[in-house]
Amino acid sequence: MDNTRHDIIPEPALRRMPWYLAYVSLLRERKVEFVSSTQISRELKVDASQIAKDLSFLDIKGKTRIGYEVALLEHKLEEFLGFRREHRAVIVGVGSLGGALMQDSGLGRYGLEIVAGFDVNPAVAGTLRHGLPVYNINELKERCQILHAGIGIVTVPVEHAQATADRLIEAGVKAIWNFTPYRICVPDGIVISNTSIYAHLAVMYNRMHS
Amino acid sequence: MDNTRHDIIPEPALRRMPWYLAYVSLLRERKVEFVSSTQISRELKVDASQIAKDLSFLDIKGKTRIGYEVALLEHKLEEFLGFRREHRAVIVGVGSLGGALMQDSGLGRYGLEIVAGFDVNPAVAGTLRHGLPVYNINELKERCQILHAGIGIVTVPVEHAQATADRLIEAGVKAIWNFTPYRICVPDGIVISNTSIYAHLAVMYNRMHS
Repeated sequence: MDNTRHDIIPEPALRRMPWYLAYVSLLRERKVEFVSSTQISRELKVDASQIAKDLSFLDIKGKTRIGYEVALLEHKLEEFLGFRREHRAVIVGVGSLGGALMQDSGLGRYGLEIVAGFDVNPAVAGTLRHGLPVYNINELKERCQILHAGIGIVTVPVEHAQATADRLIEAGVKAIWNFTPYRICVPDGIVISNTSIYAHLAVMYNRMHS
Repeated sequence: MDNTRHDIIPEPALRRMPWYLAYVSLLRERKVEFVSSTQISRELKVDASQIAKDLSFLDIKGKTRIGYEVALLEHKLEEFLGFRREHRAVIVGVGSLGGALMQDSGLGRYGLEIVAGFDVNPAVAGTLRHGLPVYNINELKERCQILHAGIGIVTVPVEHAQATADRLIEAGVKAIWNFTPYRICVPDGIVISNTSIYAHLAVMYNRMHS
């Protein structure tokens, strides 16, 4: 039964929740049984009332004075964040970053199951990468449908970013995870998530020099 | 001569600039000579007056009616964003993500020079990874100083994130690039940049299901 309120949760809350999850997972490993929002607040330097508000989106109640049950809170956070469901994804562009993501087994723990890669390079297509098949980009639509891929990860050179996203959407994916610095546009109903590590670098460099 | 205004530029502007850069690089490759903020606006779906405002941080002037010189704008953006300077970085935690980042040769184009990795695992320490040395974590301070590393990339398991950052700061780095989902705290004067790909996943999953 899922009586959490998925639709109204603001992005900043969603971005804070993985912090809480990382912390409670740590507490669980340390055999701590209960944690209060005040404790989480002290550790993560997030306002305690903000934490209580964020956690109110979950189907969990803290107990007066002792707080939340650690194992239950961890489970509820993972469930709420979608980390306990399998989300099948394909990667287009098996270059250095794409290949690296196919290698990153850690993503599976967060519900992301990369099932195949695609590339235009005939030397790469037809091979296995860390045990995962790499297909020719021409097979994208057919393969995506057989593989039930819901997420398309874009790690192609900038000039192919938009066209790649268009092809993925045509192949039936519901979300695009864009790792290129290009600003991809998608139609209504398709989710776009931009992880531009270059934008992070730009901000970091600027703060270092100012 | 650097008469740009590094210190006052807001983060959202810094985050948009790599989009402009990606687009003008594309135009330059296509041999386009001039571009106006209106054109950039149409392509990237960013308000034209916002673009003009962002670009006013650069030491460049657009010409009436024809706009900005593409090659010059590309150069000025790269310079402003710090992509034309070398920033030396070390990676702590040569697991799947850390190893993957050491492999991602694309980062060099954005001014990030990864010079070494560090790990606690004796099977990894002392080896080469994609041509880069991996040292034992005990050598961190000594090596960081020899290598003049200004940035420490943290890709260790969550429970070691804060301690790793503390050691990197003690070893003299000026910025921490945190890839773990843990919220690392740093003292004043040290830059912290969080790239939690898990937070991106959480937001993407939520939007897919709502």
